[in-house]
This record gives sequence, structure tokens and C-alpha cells, in this order.
Amino acid sequence: MATFQTLRDLATEAALISSSASVLGWDQETYLPAQGSAWRSRQLAWLAGRAHELATSNSWRRALEEAEPDNPRDAASLEEMRRDFERAEKLPTSFVERETELTSQAKHAWAAARSHDDFAAFAPFLQQLVDLLREKADRWGYENEAYDALLEPYERGWTAEGLAELFDQLGPELREIATSAVERSRSRSAHLPEGPFPVEQQMAFNRKVAEALGFEFTQGRIDTTTHPFCTTLGPADVRLTTRYEVTDFTSSLFGVMHEAGHGLYELGMRPADFGLPAGSACSYGIHESQSRLWENHVGRSRAFWEHWYPIAIEHFPQLRDLSLDAFLSFVWKAEFSPIRVEADEATYDLHILLRFGIERRLMSGELAVADVPAAWNDAFEASFGMRPRDNREGCLQDIHWSMGGIGYFPTYTLGNLGAAQLFAAARRDASVEAGLQQANYAPLLDWLRSRVHDFGATLSPADLIRQATGSDPSAEAHLNHLRERY
Amino acid sequence: MATFQTLRDLATEAALISSSASVLGWDQETYLPAQGSAWRSRQLAWLAGRAHELATSNSWRRALEEAEPDNPRDAASLEEMRRDFERAEKLPTSFVERETELTSQAKHAWAAARSHDDFAAFAPFLQQLVDLLREKADRWGYENEAYDALLEPYERGWTAEGLAELFDQLGPELREIATSAVERSRSRSAHLPEGPFPVEQQMAFNRKVAEALGFEFTQGRIDTTTHPFCTTLGPADVRLTTRYEVTDFTSSLFGVMHEAGHGLYELGMRPADFGLPAGSACSYGIHESQSRLWENHVGRSRAFWEHWYPIAIEHFPQLRDLSLDAFLSFVWKAEFSPIRVEADEATYDLHILLRFGIERRLMSGELAVADVPAAWNDAFEASFGMRPRDNREGCLQDIHWSMGGIGYFPTYTLGNLGAAQLFAAARRDASVEAGLQQANYAPLLDWLRSRVHDFGATLSPADLIRQATGSDPSAEAHLNHLRERY
Repeated sequence: MATFQTLRDLATEAALISSSASVLGWDQETYLPAQGSAWRSRQLAWLAGRAHELATSNSWRRALEEAEPDNPRDAASLEEMRRDFERAEKLPTSFVERETELTSQAKHAWAAARSHDDFAAFAPFLQQLVDLLREKADRWGYENEAYDALLEPYERGWTAEGLAELFDQLGPELREIATSAVERSRSRSAHLPEGPFPVEQQMAFNRKVAEALGFEFTQGRIDTTTHPFCTTLGPADVRLTTRYEVTDFTSSLFGVMHEAGHGLYELGMRPADFGLPAGSACSYGIHESQSRLWENHVGRSRAFWEHWYPIAIEHFPQLRDLSLDAFLSFVWKAEFSPIRVEADEATYDLHILLRFGIERRLMSGELAVADVPAAWNDAFEASFGMRPRDNREGCLQDIHWSMGGIGYFPTYTLGNLGAAQLFAAARRDASVEAGLQQANYAPLLDWLRSRVHDFGATLSPADLIRQATGSDPSAEAHLNHLRERY
Repeated sequence: MATFQTLRDLATEAALISSSASVLGWDQETYLPAQGSAWRSRQLAWLAGRAHELATSNSWRRALEEAEPDNPRDAASLEEMRRDFERAEKLPTSFVERETELTSQAKHAWAAARSHDDFAAFAPFLQQLVDLLREKADRWGYENEAYDALLEPYERGWTAEGLAELFDQLGPELREIATSAVERSRSRSAHLPEGPFPVEQQMAFNRKVAEALGFEFTQGRIDTTTHPFCTTLGPADVRLTTRYEVTDFTSSLFGVMHEAGHGLYELGMRPADFGLPAGSACSYGIHESQSRLWENHVGRSRAFWEHWYPIAIEHFPQLRDLSLDAFLSFVWKAEFSPIRVEADEATYDLHILLRFGIERRLMSGELAVADVPAAWNDAFEASFGMRPRDNREGCLQDIHWSMGGIGYFPTYTLGNLGAAQLFAAARRDASVEAGLQQANYAPLLDWLRSRVHDFGATLSPADLIRQATGSDPSAEAHLNHLRERY
């Protein structure tokens, strides 16, 4: 039976396994009792074992070889699956085991090193990770530099050189925008009235907003975790999480809007293709474009708050004496801060440019592991006009490297660029623009569904942007957006 | 390697699979978004498939054949596992598939029949279930009657005849106790002051009680569901659920105490034996003895409320004007009601005796399916002095038969008998008795752990009772308890 069905069935089975693991992972972050974690790790390891077995099985290989798609959509899925399979095949089991072991140790070492501000304790692990990732890149193969190979699974089609060019152009303009945004913020009083903003009220308000964006609670939930995330437990089951600060209701709200952006993307793909590339996200950068679009372009806009601020006041009566303009000054506050996850829109990308520069040079060997802290702090000072107080505020702040995630950071900025470019294109549609003015987000969601979500990973990130917006991927819309906002 | 280790490893793998399914099942009842259920069923089916594959694998068979336990505990596990395997082997795959399909259809048919009070619509399914269960009993084999074979997996060592003898003795005494309890209740005003009893306050109070019983929240949680249950997600992860009525805080509380009884049993077994019979419950009846012990013998006692009533008043100030005695009249209220799940202690077992009589005669062929409603209503009238208004209040009220669960009901009454007998024995220990008077439940829990929990399923239910109490299983303690309370 040389059709596509066998492969589709296997992909569904793989999705059953991975989404079961996602249920266990979601519970681990939300509700798992403290003493339950050891057994939970074993459950997850068992599921990971079955997923690996299936993905490297002879049936899988045979199905990939024999599949005969009879439409372009299935053909695109097949092509992508073959690429994944070939990449996986190039890594012997012994390599994968070494990688799993090293990243597991490195994560612990990183956490300890960060809490003691002891880069030297992490350095040997970072060295081993860099060596291992070089080996991985060699095994996968690349044309110009090892970093390209690492980038590929995150953002197909991009190269380090291409990114460097883009970021080199972006850098000076971003620094100019950030500097003037920070200066303007300083000259304004921009803070919320005193809390508490009761968590229950935040939950009620966030829920109304999420529903208005089109996130259906028959297909998802919002729970509470230390770090907000979005996870897909099934084709019609997507869970968002956020965290609550009683002194600032916008923290949980923007968390929800960001994660809802991810969730709407996941729910916008075809359930029939769940588990296949055609029913999966195009790339990390495109995923991030969806979250940033809803969080920053919709959620931090004046039009949004013209509608929602009166409703916010109903939930949080202490806002009554704060004008909409004063509130927006708070929402648009820009500050130079050493910590990426706390950064505002105006300064965020500068954190990414810095990381990209460092990790690219690390991979090429131009920068030695021991020199990372100094290089980081110098680059930070050049961009932000201040030095991190210590490595906790510097090169030890992010978990990514310890997980072997070199190549991941650029997707954040690609997400910002994509968000701006897609949003600008969507607004050229009169019904989208009219909807935004009336707090009716259905036209925007429909636009995104038909131009982005529905394609899954059948196109490369760049092609997806091209067909959705009519232009090559570019930073222009993002810079315009930042200039306008700040 | 002819040791016990191979079998232990396989049992652990089976436990990883089944407990992963339990996580998915727990989420299904607590937090799953409505549209997530179709995919969830497929995830559960996939896990069930892997569990079945493993339990019928050649490695499992070989490990059972070759295992050489070097201690009596492992030997008992091995014996029980061999029994299970032999039972499973006697059912061909085609039979298991027929059973799965039929019970799935029958459950839907039952739900529809109950909601329309249409026994005739359920009758053909009940007939097929009876036929199928007769076939199952034939395949498993039995000495006297088919019902014995069905009883075995629920309550090893009991026969229908043995149960009939016990229940025949119990019946008249139970009816006498129930009748006078109901009369006494009628003569007293026994109700709570008006609600609401806020759910948040109920949650806080229930949590304090559960903690006092010894249920540790680092090893478990309490969530909210339509039907309270307890499920084990790992050796140190047991989840309880309850439901809340704003007009009666005792409903959620006794739900929690009941489920905590199950949970303490699960957490009281040896984590090292998790997945093996030595680390699993002895029987359904013994499991129920633990829940009933904590719910009824501890939770509905005067000593309990002497300590907890003042604390309840702090949570629910409207109790202030209700005396402890008046409150206890409410807690001990007895009523003849047609619905088993709403029955009080005084009348509960009568529901079980009725069901046992009917299902035994159904299996033997003495009672035809078509005659079940009349037989039920006659038996009910003989016991309760009233007739159900319809079959929804009669033979259609319980889900058990539709799931093929003939043989299950008696375990409820065996649980009541076990609870009373174990509790009476435990109280002969001075520290247990002193603890109960001081709301210190640690000595009782320790007693249960060392006399019951720790043995897992290494003993038969009757032997477990014998070694824990020094006497053969008997109804005496239960009758004494009911006489004393009513």
C-alpha cells in the first residue's frame, strides 16, 4: 500500500506519544506534588524512549521511503519528515546519549553557577557543550560555518551570515530607538497606582481578553506557573499559563496574550494534519511572531486599551484616577535593564543581537569560553551604556546554552520582525483594521489563520512571510513600529 | 539471570504505563477542556495498547516462568502475578475485544436508558453482558457457580455461597438497625443552618482535616470533580477529588475523608514494590475498608467532632448557634432513600445485599433480564418499606453492570465489615485510642500501615484481616458499631 496513509498513521502515533508526554509535563509545571517529580521523570523517560523507538523504527523508515503523496500538502510534509529523519540518522545513539547526559549535567551546573555567580564552575560544561555542538554540526554538515547547521532546526533557511547582515543593519537603529525611548520614559511618571490587584480579578480580566482574541476555553485553559508557557496536549487542547504579580496586573495579562498568541497558532492548524509537518508550526521564529503580534502589536496598542481600559477599571477600581494616557506611559515604559526576560519592546532585540554575536563567535572558535564574561560585559556596555553587576546579570542569566540551545536566541528577534511585518500586512486589510478599532479581533485572527496558521510547516519561514505579506522578510516594519511607539 | 529482578523491572515498566494513563485520566476528570476528550481517548487507548502488549509479551511470560524470588514477599508477588497472567491467558484477544466493545456500547445505552427511564432499551445490552460474563466465567473456570469466578478478581477467596451466608445473617439485623435509626432520625430536627458554606472555606477546612489524618500534600492534592475519587499517579503522588455543596460543608468533607482513606492506603505501601502485588492493594474490599474507616469510624465519631467542631465554626460562623449534639444528629441522620450513593451508614448495606441477590440470580439464570425491574422493586420494598418511583431510582441507578462489573457490589459491604473490624482491633491499642480522643491520628495510621498497608496484596483479604485483628472476618464489629451509633 504505497500511499501516504501509513506515514500519516505513524505520525499520528508519534503525536499521541509526544502529546501524552506534554500532559505529564504540563501537570509537572502546574499541579504535581513535590514528591511526585522523581516518578514523573521516569514516566517521561519511558515515553521519550517509545517516541525515539518509533521515530527510528524500520516501519518509519520504510513509510518515508515508500510514501506516495497525492497532493502538494502531503508532499511538503513528506519532504520535511525526510529532512528530520536524515538529520536524526546522522547522529548515532551513542552521540544522542552523550548529548542527553551532558545537557542534563550542564543544566544543574548552570543553575548552581548562576546562583553562586560562579562562571568558572559552568565554564567546563560550556566548553564540552560547544565541542559537542561542533561535532553535531559536523555530523549534520554545513556549507559555511558550524552555526548554520545548528540554526537549521530552529529556523530553516537562515544562515549565520544572513543573520549577521540583518542584525548589523538593525543594531545602530535599534540602539538609537532604545536610547531615545529610555530617555522619554525617564521624563515621565509611569507607574500603576498601588496594589493589590487581586489575583481573582486578574484571572477574570485575562479570561475576558483571551476570549475576545478568539482563544476558546472549550479548547484550552489558563493555569498558573512560575514561568508562563503554552503547551499543546491535543489538536483541540492547548494550555496556557501565566504568573500573577499583585502589584501589576499587566504582567499576567501580557503573559496571557503572549501565550494565547502561541495557542491560537497551534489551534489554527488543521486537526487532520496533527502530528504531520503540515499541522505543525513553521519555525520557532514564526511561532514567536504570533505571540509577539498579539502581545505587543495588539495588546500594547492605544486602540486596544481604548476599549479595554474601562473594563480594567471595573476589575481594578484603583485605576479610576489614572488616565488612559498615563496608563499607556506605563505600558510603554522603556528601561535599560541587564535581564532579557524583563526587557521591554524598545530594548529587547539588543539583548538578542548581543547573544547572537557571542554564540556565533563561540562556535567559530573566535571567542574562547573563558573570555565569554568579559566579551558579554563589553558588548553589553557598548549597547546599553552600563555593565552588568555580575555574571548572574550577564552571561549566566539564560538557561538556553546549558540545554545545548545555541542557535535558539535569534528566533526571538526573527519573531519580532515577523510579528511587525505580518501585522502591518494584515492591517492593510480594511476589515482587520476596522476590527482592531472596535476590539473585534476575529478579522485579524481569520487573516492569520488563512495566511499563516493553515500552512503549518509546508513552507519555509521566509516563504511563509513572503506569501502572507507579499514582501521578502525584512526589519522595516519592526523598526517603523518601534519608532512610532517610542 | 534467573532472579526476581527481571520481573520487577517489567512490573515497574507496566506501572509507568498505567500511572501515565492515570495522569491522563485524572486530567480528563479535573481540567480537560471539553473539546479535548476525543484526542484524550486516543492517547489512553494507545497507552492501554502498550500495557496489554507488555502484559502478554514473551518477556513477561518468560520472566514469570524463570523468576526465582529469594524472599516470601517476592514469592507472594510472583504467585499473584502468575494467577493474573493465567487468568489473562484464558481470554483470547477476540474475547477481550468483544468485551471492550460491548461495555463501551452498554455504558452509552445505560446512560440513555437511565435518563429516559427506559429499561427495555438497556435490557438487550444487559442480556449480552450476562452472556458474555458467563462465557468469561466459563473460560476462567469455577467450582460451584459462575458468579464465583467473577468475584475472584475483586475479592480473592470469597465465593457466592460464602457471601450469601454472610449476607443472610446480616440482613435481618441490618433491617432492624436501619428501621430504628430512621425512626429516631425522624423524631429529631437534624439540619444544618442555612448556607452558603463558601467553597473556599470548605477547601481550607478539608485540607486541615486531611493533613491531620496524615495525608501529606507533598505527596498529593485535592481537586474538584463531579464524582469524588482517588487515583494513584506514582508511588508518592496520589490525587483525591471531592465535590462541593454550598448548602452542606460535610458533603465535601466526608468525600475528602473517604478518598483520603484510599489515598493513605496507596501511600502506605512500599514505594520499592510499586507496580508489584506486594506494593498494590489487597482487594477492592480492603481498599474500601480504609476509606470507610476514616470516613465513618473516625470522621463521623463524636470524638472527632469534639475537636473539629470548634474549628468548623471558625470556618463557617453560621454554625455558632448549632450545638455539637444537634450537629451530630445531622451527621448521623438516617433515611430510607432509593439511591445507594446518597445512603447513610445505617441503610447502605441493604442496598448492597439487594444488588448481590439480584446479580447472583441473574448469573445463575434463576432471574431473567426482563424480570430485573420487578425483582428489584419487590426486594427494595421488602427491605426499605417503599418502592422506587421508577427504574431510574431502581435498577438503572448504578453504572456498574453496564461496565461488566458484576461481582463488584459486595466489596462495598465487605469494606464496611473490614473497616469496623479493623477499627475495633486498632482501638484495643491504647495509643490508638488515646490518639483518637486527642485528635492525634498518627497512632491509628501507624497501626494501619504496619498491619494492613505494608502487606499490599501478599495476603488474601481474609488472611489480611486475620493477621491484623486476630480473628476471622466477621460482621460482628460492624453490627456493634451500627447499634452503638444508632
